[in-house]
Amino acid sequence: MSANPLQAIMHARSVVIAGASNNLMKMGTIQAMNLLFGGYSGEALFLHPSEKSVLGRPAYRTPADLPFAPELALLTTPTRVTPALLDGLGERGVRHAVITTAGFREMGPAGAQLEAELLAIANRHGIRFVGPNCIGVLNAHAHLNLTVCPYNDVPGGLGLISQSGTYVAQTMPYLREHGIRYSQAISVGNASNIDLVDSLAYLGDDPDTKAIAMYIEGVGRGRAFLEVARRVTRRKPVVALYVGGSAAGARSSASHTGSLGSPDRLFDGVCAQAGIVRAATVDEMFGWAHALANMPLPRGRRLAILTHSGGPATSMADTCERRGLEVPEFSAELQARIRPFIEPTASAKNPVDLTFIMGGDNFVDKIPEILFASDEVDGVLIHGMMDTGFAAEMHTVASHVFTISREDFLKPMEFDLAPLLALPTRYGKPLVASNFLREDHAAQTFRDHGIPLFRTPEAAVKAMAALVRAGEVQRRG
Amino acid sequence: MSANPLQAIMHARSVVIAGASNNLMKMGTIQAMNLLFGGYSGEALFLHPSEKSVLGRPAYRTPADLPFAPELALLTTPTRVTPALLDGLGERGVRHAVITTAGFREMGPAGAQLEAELLAIANRHGIRFVGPNCIGVLNAHAHLNLTVCPYNDVPGGLGLISQSGTYVAQTMPYLREHGIRYSQAISVGNASNIDLVDSLAYLGDDPDTKAIAMYIEGVGRGRAFLEVARRVTRRKPVVALYVGGSAAGARSSASHTGSLGSPDRLFDGVCAQAGIVRAATVDEMFGWAHALANMPLPRGRRLAILTHSGGPATSMADTCERRGLEVPEFSAELQARIRPFIEPTASAKNPVDLTFIMGGDNFVDKIPEILFASDEVDGVLIHGMMDTGFAAEMHTVASHVFTISREDFLKPMEFDLAPLLALPTRYGKPLVASNFLREDHAAQTFRDHGIPLFRTPEAAVKAMAALVRAGEVQRRG
Repeated sequence: MSANPLQAIMHARSVVIAGASNNLMKMGTIQAMNLLFGGYSGEALFLHPSEKSVLGRPAYRTPADLPFAPELALLTTPTRVTPALLDGLGERGVRHAVITTAGFREMGPAGAQLEAELLAIANRHGIRFVGPNCIGVLNAHAHLNLTVCPYNDVPGGLGLISQSGTYVAQTMPYLREHGIRYSQAISVGNASNIDLVDSLAYLGDDPDTKAIAMYIEGVGRGRAFLEVARRVTRRKPVVALYVGGSAAGARSSASHTGSLGSPDRLFDGVCAQAGIVRAATVDEMFGWAHALANMPLPRGRRLAILTHSGGPATSMADTCERRGLEVPEFSAELQARIRPFIEPTASAKNPVDLTFIMGGDNFVDKIPEILFASDEVDGVLIHGMMDTGFAAEMHTVASHVFTISREDFLKPMEFDLAPLLALPTRYGKPLVASNFLREDHAAQTFRDHGIPLFRTPEAAVKAMAALVRAGEVQRRG
Repeated sequence: MSANPLQAIMHARSVVIAGASNNLMKMGTIQAMNLLFGGYSGEALFLHPSEKSVLGRPAYRTPADLPFAPELALLTTPTRVTPALLDGLGERGVRHAVITTAGFREMGPAGAQLEAELLAIANRHGIRFVGPNCIGVLNAHAHLNLTVCPYNDVPGGLGLISQSGTYVAQTMPYLREHGIRYSQAISVGNASNIDLVDSLAYLGDDPDTKAIAMYIEGVGRGRAFLEVARRVTRRKPVVALYVGGSAAGARSSASHTGSLGSPDRLFDGVCAQAGIVRAATVDEMFGWAHALANMPLPRGRRLAILTHSGGPATSMADTCERRGLEVPEFSAELQARIRPFIEPTASAKNPVDLTFIMGGDNFVDKIPEILFASDEVDGVLIHGMMDTGFAAEMHTVASHVFTISREDFLKPMEFDLAPLLALPTRYGKPLVASNFLREDHAAQTFRDHGIPLFRTPEAAVKAMAALVRAGEVQRRG
């Protein structure tokens, strides 16, 4: 395993950056700031042809001037100077690089020629590199961020491998808003040297990575991909979004990363054989991988639905059936255990629909515990468990008659969610939730504690279906 | 058209509320506050069996005590007293009601018996009513809000008809966050008297409503529904989410509103015949109806994609093809018009991919104008047009080296979007956008001006497909 070049790249203790300057609007400068001010404890050095210092640090003119050979080089330089610079870095003893520079294979024949040249130089020096035409890499646990976006969140368990740089970096605020946290993220770009397969094998062995998401425009080494994926998915879930299967997608990806896609059905077959869960959209890819990284896998497909809203209950039940999941009517015995905690007009059949406005205790504590403990249930879906969010809406009108501050109004509404948060681990069953409110104490608590929380009931069910599928993959071995 | 009872209900100039009290946690009280403090200019009266005043207003003990016959009654009373109360209101001359009280048909045979009684009383007095077992109604333009959630937004063009109260009320903060604005919303509940068909006919004629969304668990009057829908969709787009087609969905909806669903394929056939655009999820229902309420319908299916991100461009192109939309490679002439405004490494073929970091002017102004003006393009998709959001992320690291306040850092980043916002109306072609950032000046400007903005490229394309479909429906007449 130690032979995987990403082990050295993602844990580099020194990085030399070429392409950063004191111009804030330059991509290389942004990457340098994300490294310098992102908590990285290793050493950062700079190369610059004319500036004496970059971002307050001394800059070296050429690779030969470097005081030692850094473990990693980041190149965000003009296309034409990049091959010679890589050559110089190789001479200086650098053996690993991340090349974000674009203008290679994705630009047609002349670019492909230049990329071949880059690869030949790397091979001559034994350099292994990510890119070119990528957006950098992130190891959140090592605070090594060479992407164009700051990582303003705690590290997590989601590993991303992407042929799109945007999906690595520009999505970071989106992920933070949804409580989705990276372990590591790799923008493979043109994958000239280190490719999807290397990245998958690497994250498959990374202990911080609990589930892997892949954005794929085209797979270069089909057989190797299949073999590695089969091995990884036996112990770690993998979700893939593949967009190279349509003619329009293929044309777009050719001018993006120079990838060649294969027919869509072929990729479906690959996923089935390899045990990969296939997502259809980027939010599915992230949301499902997040759920897989944080929840135990269910041992079956029998789900309990708990809500106080009949519409979302019906939407969830409907989506379950469309996705091949079961919402069994509970036994009389189980219904009898639930009945004391719900209103006379509410249903205990499954979905358990508490109907409008109930004391929070039963919703949060007693009923979920009954559901998790039941041998009729493999996983639990909850819609609408929110507390302060709705009260905040109410305060806008209530303040006309009740003289109470927003804070005093909201504070007593907060649920104690600790008992609920413990249930998935205690019973080894997943919990997936949805509600329409974003700004809400309960919603924020879910996000803070890795409970997958979606904005719609349908999205929660689809994530649960991904958990069920990944559980089946692991059981088949 | 004036015969439609919803005309009187949704424009009532006086409302008597039964079921409100001075207990803030009661549903009726919440509804009363939403009416009293939501800008309603009509008269609000209260009935209460024991309290002398409710929310600071005098309360009448019985309907006979009312000083005049209000145009509308809202009943949020205990189930057992509701029929008698409706009878008393009828005696007093009330002819329209909204009955939110639950505990009727959805509770089985005894409840069905009680609902029949309620209906007989209404018929005896000539009362038309919404409900029972609903969450109220909203006319945002009249500031008549009888639901359980305050409507804290300006009025808009989306009319909602829903068999789920949650989708009417608890989604309001979600809609506000997405810039989606109601004209009117009707929670039909058990639809004992006024049903889906009445509601569709009414909103079809409402001048404030530009598009209609429907959440359906079961259609009672199939033939009438089809006839009214065919008539409405010729001039106003209708989106429907139907969840009664699966066995699990049907069981859930039976205990929710007592609805009986019909097979899923049958409903697909109804949609095809009636010209209804069928959504698969609640966010599709709202997002598509929002786009339909605000954008011109395209005259064909040829789309331009504009972005600075290759991954989202490919995702958009791929999703277009899956949805039967075209992303034609532009003519040499059109490419030549675009070329001066993009980097040498960027693609003008379609998708137009500007690649990472460009001056905003060309993205916002020059290139969109070329695309809208072209007779090769029926509609425009834009991903990633954001300005201050990414800068705000950057400021967290840039502040370590550049002493500049967040405000001073963000202000110069703001695009002038006025020219772009004018394009859809000027050229009669739709614009649908996506980006991953929520807190962003450009994103907020889009939301404020009714430009449909989605969080993912795939969601934007699906909304565009709904626009294309609605355009085809109107052209077939």
